[in-house]
Amino acid sequence: MEDLHHTCQWGTGKRWGKAETETGMTRLALSDSDKQARDWFVKTTEDLGCTVTIDEMGNIFAVRPGLKNDRPPTFAGSHLDTQPTGGRYDGILGVHAGIEMLKVLNENWIETEYPVGVVNWTNEEGARFPMSMSSSGVWAGSIPLSTAHNLREVHPGTATMAEELSRIGYLGSVPASHEATPMAAHFELHIEQGPLLEMANKKVGVVTGVQAYKWLTINVKGRDTHTGTTDLKSRADALLAASKMILHSHRLATANNALASTGILNLKPGSTNTVPGDVSFSLDIRAPADATVARVLALVEQDFPKIAAGENLSGLNDGGTPSLPCTVSITEDFDSPATTFHASCIDAVTRAAHRVLGPEGKSLTMEMTSGAGHDSVYASKRCPTSMIFVPCREGMSHNPEEFCKEDDCAIGAEVLLHAVLRFDRM
Amino acid sequence: MEDLHHTCQWGTGKRWGKAETETGMTRLALSDSDKQARDWFVKTTEDLGCTVTIDEMGNIFAVRPGLKNDRPPTFAGSHLDTQPTGGRYDGILGVHAGIEMLKVLNENWIETEYPVGVVNWTNEEGARFPMSMSSSGVWAGSIPLSTAHNLREVHPGTATMAEELSRIGYLGSVPASHEATPMAAHFELHIEQGPLLEMANKKVGVVTGVQAYKWLTINVKGRDTHTGTTDLKSRADALLAASKMILHSHRLATANNALASTGILNLKPGSTNTVPGDVSFSLDIRAPADATVARVLALVEQDFPKIAAGENLSGLNDGGTPSLPCTVSITEDFDSPATTFHASCIDAVTRAAHRVLGPEGKSLTMEMTSGAGHDSVYASKRCPTSMIFVPCREGMSHNPEEFCKEDDCAIGAEVLLHAVLRFDRM
Ligand SMILES: NC(=O)NCCC(=O)O
Ligand SMILES: NC(=O)NCCC(=O)O
Repeated sequence: MEDLHHTCQWGTGKRWGKAETETGMTRLALSDSDKQARDWFVKTTEDLGCTVTIDEMGNIFAVRPGLKNDRPPTFAGSHLDTQPTGGRYDGILGVHAGIEMLKVLNENWIETEYPVGVVNWTNEEGARFPMSMSSSGVWAGSIPLSTAHNLREVHPGTATMAEELSRIGYLGSVPASHEATPMAAHFELHIEQGPLLEMANKKVGVVTGVQAYKWLTINVKGRDTHTGTTDLKSRADALLAASKMILHSHRLATANNALASTGILNLKPGSTNTVPGDVSFSLDIRAPADATVARVLALVEQDFPKIAAGENLSGLNDGGTPSLPCTVSITEDFDSPATTFHASCIDAVTRAAHRVLGPEGKSLTMEMTSGAGHDSVYASKRCPTSMIFVPCREGMSHNPEEFCKEDDCAIGAEVLLHAVLRFDRM
Repeated sequence: MEDLHHTCQWGTGKRWGKAETETGMTRLALSDSDKQARDWFVKTTEDLGCTVTIDEMGNIFAVRPGLKNDRPPTFAGSHLDTQPTGGRYDGILGVHAGIEMLKVLNENWIETEYPVGVVNWTNEEGARFPMSMSSSGVWAGSIPLSTAHNLREVHPGTATMAEELSRIGYLGSVPASHEATPMAAHFELHIEQGPLLEMANKKVGVVTGVQAYKWLTINVKGRDTHTGTTDLKSRADALLAASKMILHSHRLATANNALASTGILNLKPGSTNTVPGDVSFSLDIRAPADATVARVLALVEQDFPKIAAGENLSGLNDGGTPSLPCTVSITEDFDSPATTFHASCIDAVTRAAHRVLGPEGKSLTMEMTSGAGHDSVYASKRCPTSMIFVPCREGMSHNPEEFCKEDDCAIGAEVLLHAVLRFDRM
C-alpha cells in the first residue's frame, strides 16, 4: 500500500476526503505523470532483479528468472494509466500486487520452476487514446500496430499514440507481439468496479469471463444557423437530433438488457447563438452476449438515421416542432467480443483464494464475469488467463472516490501470488 | 464591395464555392484577425479625414467634422467580429457601408450640418465572449464595465476580454460610455439573417424593433461512473439528463411560440467509458414579447429540476430505465428585453428607402422586427436609432454560405447614407 500511494503522487486527482491518500487520479496514458510512474516501475523491478523489456506499444515486461528458463514466464499484469477522473486502484492495484509478488519471492528466497513476470500494459483505459486495451490488443495480434500507433488523443486531438510514446521515451524496439514476448499465463488482480462482491459479502471474485462491448462514434450533420432568426421548422439542429439519439440508445439498452453510454460529445461551431450543424458523440454498448450487443448495434443503425431524418420514433418528436432533416454516420471504432477465461487459470485462482481465505474460503469466494474490459481479455487470446476481483466501495469506479480497503487489497495480492505460483508449478 | 472582400482576407473561413470571395469568415472578437481588420478600419477612416477614438471596450468611433460641431455626431455603426463559422456580411456590411458613406461625402464635397461618424462595436456576436452586444451594452450603461472586461472566452476558456483587448492593443483609455462618446442617432445597415424579405420579394426592411432574448447556462451534476460495470438504474448520467432537457426546451419553445436553442455543450470528464457526471450547456430563449421569454424561463426553472430528479416529464423517461437523481443549476447570463426603435429614425429610413428605390419604393419596402440582437439595441437606449435590413440568400446567417447580392448591398448602403443625411438635417 505504501508503494501504491507513493506512486499516486504522479497524477494526483481530485481530493474527496481529508486523509492524505483520499484523492483520485488523473494519469492519462503516456502523459508526463504516466512517464514518471513508468520510470518508477522500471527502476523498482530492475532493483528487484528483473530484466525489463519495452515493446513498440510501450508495454513494459519485467521478468524474474526461474530455475529453468526455456519456457515463457507466468505473468501478473495490469495497467498504470487512469481515467481523467479515476481512482487509485483501477489497474494500479494489479501492477503493485505484481511488484509485491516479486518482493515476497525475493524476501523468501523462493525460486520458481520457470520465470515469472509483471507487465504494465499501455493505455488500457482507452480514455486518452479511444480504444481500450489497445496495447495488449496489439500484443495479441488483434489490433494492427499501425492502428494503435495512429490513434489520436481525444482532447485536444493533436498527438498520436506513436508520437506520445516517443515523446516520453517509451517507444521500445521489441515488436509488440505474443511471439516476441510470449507468456505461459496471465493473471490479473483488479477491483471489481461493480457492487456484487460487496452486496454479497464476498472477499474474492473468481473471474470466469468478460462481457462483450463495442465502441461507436456517431456523427450527426445538420446546418449552422442563427438561433434568433431561424424558426424551429427551418432548422437542421444536429444537437437536438443527437439528444434524441442518446435518449433512444437508453431505451434500446433497457429493452435489450444491455448498457448504452455516451461519455464524449463534441459539437461545432460551439457558439451560443449558432444552432450547431455538427455533433459527434461516442456510444459504448455492452452486454454479456455478443448477440445482444450485435442486436443493439443493428437497432442503432436502423433507428438513428430515422431519428436524423425526423421520424417520430418512440414519440421523440411529440410536442416539438418538426424540422429539416439531419444526416448521421456511424463508425465502429472498437469491438471486444465476450471472453471466456481458461479453466486451469480459473482453477488456480479458486484454489489460491480458498487457501488464502482459510476455512471460510469457499463462502467468501464467488465466480463472476466482468462488466469492464481488461488486458486479460487480449492476453486470454494467446495464453491461459484468469482474473481475481476484490470488492470496492459501493462498486464505484472511474470516479475519484473509488476505494478498496487495505485488507482487501492484501487478500487480492496474496491470491495473485498463490495463483501464479500454482500455475508455475503446474 | 472591393473593400469588404479585401478585409475578409483577415479571418477567411470555410470555402463553399469556387469564386475567390466564396468563403465564410472566422473572425472571433479580439483575435489576431480582428486586430488586422481593426487596424485597417482605423487607417482607412483616418485617411478619410476622421478623428478616431478608442474606448475601454475597444469600440472604435471615427468622426467626420460637420459645419457645426457643438452637437454629437450621427452615427452609422455595426461590427467587424464574426461567428466561428460566420459569413462575410453579418456586421461587416454595416461597417463598410459606413465607410462608403464617408467616401461619398468626401468625393462629393458634402458638408453635413453636424459631424457624422462610423462606429465598429466590439464583440457584437457574443460568440467568443459569451454576451452578445457586450460593448455597446457597456457604452449604454446597461452592462457594467467590469462584467464585460471579466468575460472569459468560450474556447478554450483562458483569456478574458480585458486581457485580449490589451493584447491586441485596443484597450482604449476613453471611458466606454454614452456620456464620453455621445451620439445624435445610430443607424445600422445589416443583412436580415432571416428569409422574410426574400420570400416577400422586398429590397429593404425598415426595422422597427428587436425581439427579446435571454441566455442561460445550465449545469447538470450527476456522478462519474464506469460505463461497463454500472447498471442503468445505478447511474446519475448528467448527459442523459441534459439530453432530456434539450428535448424539453424544444417542446417548451414550440408550445409557447418561442425559440430555444443550445449552441454550446461541455461535459466532464469526457471519456468513452465514463458516464459523465458534469454537463454544462447554453440555452438561448427568444420571442417577440418579454412576457413570452419570461414564461419559457419560468417553465425551464420549474421543469429542469424535475427532469434532473428523474420525473417522467412529458414521457421523457418512457421506455428507459429509471436511474439515480442528478441536480441542476440555472444561471441567467444575459438579458436583452424587446426593443422598439425611434419613430423619427424609422421615418428617416423609410423616406431614404423610398428615395433610393424610386417610384416602386413603397412596394419594395416593408417594416419588420429583428430576430437577432444588434448593437442598435443598446444604442437605442441612449439615442434615436433604427436599422435597415437587406435580403440575404435563403435567410441563412451564422453560416459560411451567408450571402447578400452586390446590388442589395449597394441599395442598403445608399439607404444608410440618405437616412444619416436626413437625420443630420433634421
Ligand atoms: N477496467 C477498466 O476500467 N477498463 C477500461 C476498459 C473498459 O472500458 O471496460
Ligand atoms: N446580428 C447578430 O447575429 N447578432 C448576434 C446577437 C444575437 O445573438 O442575436
